[in-house]
Amino acid sequence: MEPSEQKKRVKSVKKKWRAGVLGATGIVGQRLVKLLAGHPWFELTEVAASERSSGMTYAEAVRWHLETPIPEVARDLVVKGVEPVLECDFVFSALDSSVAGPVEVDFARAGYPVVSNSKNHRMDADVPLLIPEVNASHLDAIPVQQKNRGYDTGFIVTNPNCSTAGLVLVLKPLAEAFGLERIFVVTLQAISGAGYPGVASMDIQSNVVPFISGEEEKMEAEPQKLLGKWDGARFVEAGVGISAHCNRVAVLHGHLECVSLGLKKIASLDEVREALRTFEVDEELASLPTALRHPVVVVDEEDRPQPRRDVEAGEGMAAVVGRIRECPLHDVKLTLLSHNLVRGAAGAALLNAELLAARGFLKDRSAKSATEVAEPAVR
Amino acid sequence: MEPSEQKKRVKSVKKKWRAGVLGATGIVGQRLVKLLAGHPWFELTEVAASERSSGMTYAEAVRWHLETPIPEVARDLVVKGVEPVLECDFVFSALDSSVAGPVEVDFARAGYPVVSNSKNHRMDADVPLLIPEVNASHLDAIPVQQKNRGYDTGFIVTNPNCSTAGLVLVLKPLAEAFGLERIFVVTLQAISGAGYPGVASMDIQSNVVPFISGEEEKMEAEPQKLLGKWDGARFVEAGVGISAHCNRVAVLHGHLECVSLGLKKIASLDEVREALRTFEVDEELASLPTALRHPVVVVDEEDRPQPRRDVEAGEGMAAVVGRIRECPLHDVKLTLLSHNLVRGAAGAALLNAELLAARGFLKDRSAKSATEVAEPAVR
Amino acid sequence: MEPSEQKKRVKSVKKKWRAGVLGATGIVGQRLVKLLAGHPWFELTEVAASERSSGMTYAEAVRWHLETPIPEVARDLVVKGVEPVLECDFVFSALDSSVAGPVEVDFARAGYPVVSNSKNHRMDADVPLLIPEVNASHLDAIPVQQKNRGYDTGFIVTNPNCSTAGLVLVLKPLAEAFGLERIFVVTLQAISGAGYPGVASMDIQSNVVPFISGEEEKMEAEPQKLLGKWDGARFVEAGVGISAHCNRVAVLHGHLECVSLGLKKIASLDEVREALRTFEVDEELASLPTALRHPVVVVDEEDRPQPRRDVEAGEGMAAVVGRIRECPLHDVKLTLLSHNLVRGAAGAALLNAELLAARGFLKDRSAKSATEVAEPAVR
Amino acid sequence: MEPSEQKKRVKSVKKKWRAGVLGATGIVGQRLVKLLAGHPWFELTEVAASERSSGMTYAEAVRWHLETPIPEVARDLVVKGVEPVLECDFVFSALDSSVAGPVEVDFARAGYPVVSNSKNHRMDADVPLLIPEVNASHLDAIPVQQKNRGYDTGFIVTNPNCSTAGLVLVLKPLAEAFGLERIFVVTLQAISGAGYPGVASMDIQSNVVPFISGEEEKMEAEPQKLLGKWDGARFVEAGVGISAHCNRVAVLHGHLECVSLGLKKIASLDEVREALRTFEVDEELASLPTALRHPVVVVDEEDRPQPRRDVEAGEGMAAVVGRIRECPLHDVKLTLLSHNLVRGAAGAALLNAELLAARGFLKDRSAKSATEVAEPAVR
Repeated sequence: MEPSEQKKRVKSVKKKWRAGVLGATGIVGQRLVKLLAGHPWFELTEVAASERSSGMTYAEAVRWHLETPIPEVARDLVVKGVEPVLECDFVFSALDSSVAGPVEVDFARAGYPVVSNSKNHRMDADVPLLIPEVNASHLDAIPVQQKNRGYDTGFIVTNPNCSTAGLVLVLKPLAEAFGLERIFVVTLQAISGAGYPGVASMDIQSNVVPFISGEEEKMEAEPQKLLGKWDGARFVEAGVGISAHCNRVAVLHGHLECVSLGLKKIASLDEVREALRTFEVDEELASLPTALRHPVVVVDEEDRPQPRRDVEAGEGMAAVVGRIRECPLHDVKLTLLSHNLVRGAAGAALLNAELLAARGFLKDRSAKSATEVAEPAVR
Repeated sequence: MEPSEQKKRVKSVKKKWRAGVLGATGIVGQRLVKLLAGHPWFELTEVAASERSSGMTYAEAVRWHLETPIPEVARDLVVKGVEPVLECDFVFSALDSSVAGPVEVDFARAGYPVVSNSKNHRMDADVPLLIPEVNASHLDAIPVQQKNRGYDTGFIVTNPNCSTAGLVLVLKPLAEAFGLERIFVVTLQAISGAGYPGVASMDIQSNVVPFISGEEEKMEAEPQKLLGKWDGARFVEAGVGISAHCNRVAVLHGHLECVSLGLKKIASLDEVREALRTFEVDEELASLPTALRHPVVVVDEEDRPQPRRDVEAGEGMAAVVGRIRECPLHDVKLTLLSHNLVRGAAGAALLNAELLAARGFLKDRSAKSATEVAEPAVR
Repeated sequence: MEPSEQKKRVKSVKKKWRAGVLGATGIVGQRLVKLLAGHPWFELTEVAASERSSGMTYAEAVRWHLETPIPEVARDLVVKGVEPVLECDFVFSALDSSVAGPVEVDFARAGYPVVSNSKNHRMDADVPLLIPEVNASHLDAIPVQQKNRGYDTGFIVTNPNCSTAGLVLVLKPLAEAFGLERIFVVTLQAISGAGYPGVASMDIQSNVVPFISGEEEKMEAEPQKLLGKWDGARFVEAGVGISAHCNRVAVLHGHLECVSLGLKKIASLDEVREALRTFEVDEELASLPTALRHPVVVVDEEDRPQPRRDVEAGEGMAAVVGRIRECPLHDVKLTLLSHNLVRGAAGAALLNAELLAARGFLKDRSAKSATEVAEPAVR
Repeated sequence: MEPSEQKKRVKSVKKKWRAGVLGATGIVGQRLVKLLAGHPWFELTEVAASERSSGMTYAEAVRWHLETPIPEVARDLVVKGVEPVLECDFVFSALDSSVAGPVEVDFARAGYPVVSNSKNHRMDADVPLLIPEVNASHLDAIPVQQKNRGYDTGFIVTNPNCSTAGLVLVLKPLAEAFGLERIFVVTLQAISGAGYPGVASMDIQSNVVPFISGEEEKMEAEPQKLLGKWDGARFVEAGVGISAHCNRVAVLHGHLECVSLGLKKIASLDEVREALRTFEVDEELASLPTALRHPVVVVDEEDRPQPRRDVEAGEGMAAVVGRIRECPLHDVKLTLLSHNLVRGAAGAALLNAELLAARGFLKDRSAKSATEVAEPAVR
């Protein structure tokens, strides 16, 4: 898939929604700040961090990890505390899971849509765990969540764990075409997935750490919800058998996953490749600024995908899949890769926010302009 | 398992068998040369390489990769060509597979026992693929091989691929205790497994290469023979379902493997741990110089085994296994590690040669001393 | 220096010069192919390689190392041999030094301007060793070269070694402002500087190799010519004392250099910083497509520049310098970084070609349009 | 230098001195614990850590980083606080410099000889900064220190910074033979020098960090004291010009240093090599258990020393030097390597303690056996 083919027309909006980022100084928060700079629909107006750096600007407070400079729009923003008094229409939460749980609830209760990357509410019974290309219909749970919890305009939407995101994106077209029975997955995950300072160099130098706390549990649970259904009252699990082994390797960005799949319907390898290659999102999704028309990219070289060489495919929003071959035990073996900080975190949250905007879930919260509620960008 | 517990009494022999190493300048050949220095039963008398370095000494010809110096006993040996005119009682073959096939046959035909690390004859119908702790009885195939092929005193014995060796060692006690139905394995293999120059740094720096040519095929085939039986006339495969994904990672030594197992008999995790922990070789094997009493070492830390930290366990001859836990799809998940150059190559061949010596398969080939045929070291 | 400040207006030309790349499949050749795709003045029309891959397209012949795909314009070009019968107005030479010497002479003699990255002719008495920001006046040697050698329209121009390029760029403003007496430099060079397959992973994994063949000699010789003068008949060396130690480290791209300088004129650290910070090219150079207005970027953080984080500054054409501090032995210590494949190779050659174009050294060599010789793009 | 040549007879002592380790859970403390296990003169009786882990055993409290297991003798020791009530005859201090200063004074005042690896007291006017092979005579400062400070049997002796240790060991024979005028040194230091967790993998993965806080200052100051003299009342600096640049590289163990030297007396490269090669310690030092007869090892290969391949030379106590060649600016260029945790920290402290023992500076502090004061091991 050439980058040029992935380009699409994005409608611009008359008035941008104002976005805040909770946990803005962390490694995922930084990616969000970068992706929001120059975004056609959103304007970054607030940065907040759990440990308040009162009076400090964002440029002073952050230890910046990206190769490109801190966006001008963010440099001089004053870092606020994570209390629901921010001047914005919605918030992204890139908070550490040790604090995200109650903070996100506070914001939702105060009326803010919360687009969270944290794990805390992912498996809540009334919170969508969302990958737009996979289960956009799960947004129907929002009114139920609001009613259940007594939220007014606020709500919480989450994106999956970084290692789940790429996997489920690749599983989606296969689930649709052939049905899924069993998923066996072993991950080789990048160090940036652990944040900063994260993995000590003494632990990973010329080494592999065959354990990531809580990761296998997430990978075995989240796909059930993502590939399942919202029946109007609750999420029904997909009922797929999943087994995950998770490892940390000395790679900067990009989680690589070795997957064996058992399908419900017999399929040839060519049919599997074709289902992946032709996977295409609908017009609504294609019009979202961060969406790719073809979010799954199939590579043919026998030794690809590779983290360093393929992680930037689709500007980090593609899942790259290769080595599609027969599995002696299940039906199909394949190897996939996705960018843990983009498709697996900041880009995922951003795409979720775009879908929320397009569907009219974001409102103008500024007092003066209470009557000028922005129209959905896409209809 | 403390090193001290692994120590055992090794009988010394009156007269050492003279060993030659074919492919002595390669990365596996070097390990053999090192392991043979000071060996209680074997004396290194010949080094040979496929590209003859006529007149060069071993010290001149070799680009030495080990941290310890070239053994004194080898430095001044003149490198010979790989023709069966070497002054030794048997040969190790660490030849590249592009040349090993016919060369090993030449040596066997000329009367040399050939203890090979190369893949070429591993799956031959009358050649033992041997891990002493696993299938010592397969040596019974040697007389049949000699008869089939018209060999006199010569024969070929092989050890498995580096990624198979550790796996099967761990599978053995489980196969005995519970029976094996299915093996799902994903490897994270060290760069030294590819020899020298082997993997280009441009390919592996901050990267993973999810492909090793021919490796998955070997891992899916060799365990069938290793865990199978010699019925007096032929090898009967174990009939286990095996699926392997093989990856190269930026690790120096040590192949890590994520394994999920389906067992024939229901077993608790404690029973599995116990079967591994108590796995012990018999007296015959324990008396071999390179053998460990407990070749499988179970570690309890949640993030072990790790290649850099555990690869030297049992001086590279142990398979280290940890993270024994339930598998939602099969029965048991575990992670194992073994030293690809020792347990997976040079040490494996050496142990095979020791077993051959103990069982009387090695003879004194020196003309003068034809009558002083050494006695088996162990009875 | 913000990227935006570095942006400048580049005049487009009515007719592009047709460029060929010798050694197009190598790691530097690939960078050239990439940089030429979409270039405003040059059009890639020929790719050649020393080992002819007759009938193969570039896409078939190349093992592509860049993260972005092979440019469309190059994919289907048929790879030619390195003989001077190419359809182009000039050639870049990214040939291996084992073959570059006579091939470049052949092309120059056949009338092609040769813009070379190879070392072979760098120190020739009549060949400019060129960094446009440093010694553009050395182009005056071209007519002398043509006369000496009996070349008609052809000639050879070279760029320095990858480790010299960034160093001399930083030295230039200091030489002008304060005069240089002594340069002490220790390099930490990236693996991509050795090409592909280049450095074996077994050599560099968790290691440093304190030796790069011929590198110290180049670093001690080339700056003398670059910082010296063309006196109308010959190059006069700068007469600076230079000592270099060169090391290979496990970094992908970017040569880091620790430098201590003895200056002729006493200068404060602030004056040194100011001289570097204000270094600016003239209008002629600034109008070249690949030129930066400020090719030296000064960073203030105490632990920068760092290869992974700063190598892309100025799209790889900047030298990034930091840690400017007093030296107890000489006058000033500093640390600098430049992209070995861009500023140190492909980008360097491209900038040289742009200067040649701007100064009228490139001609239209197509037979039909012999009368439509393109005008210099800049006057 | 073959290991065997380095072997020497070490006298055993009738009664071992009891050693305590302050900061025993850190990365240097662990090395000390390992080196003390089985030491012929010392017995580890106490482990202490600045954050008390009351009631925890050493095995429980430590995150063990060495490849060999925790020594049996240490596993069950109860970790104490760092207060001078330990049951031992002297203490090693591997404390973090944030706490070492006053703690070491407390122990010295309470009568304990303190053998410190911390930087706090290294440059004190009456504290020996000791490398036995370099400046054993500096121990004469101890009585003056005791008198100055009112210490009874206690005192403080220190070893240099990890990057200074190997450098000065190599400088010593050159200073003696030719005199030293100027030292230019650039380091490439291993991550283990920063302790644990130390360097974040996000900072060093495929990167170099050209800054180590305080390191250049130490390297420019400590050699002056080490190569200087104790004149009976104070230390007289060596008066050598020193310039240091310090870098962190992605290497596990072993600091590599590129050095250019200006000598007082003209010397050929062969004379320099010979001075290094023949450097030999006297009988007193050679009899210390941890000492090498030849602590400087000269290697001849053009691309050595290399950290991964040479760091274990002399069991980590040798400085390995190679690439001895002319320097266009000063007189001699060379590259040296030493093990930052052994020669540069734990082994250095141990050797210092052995010299103190040999010279009678250690006493039996056990109350009951006050009369059985151990005799110096060496006379």
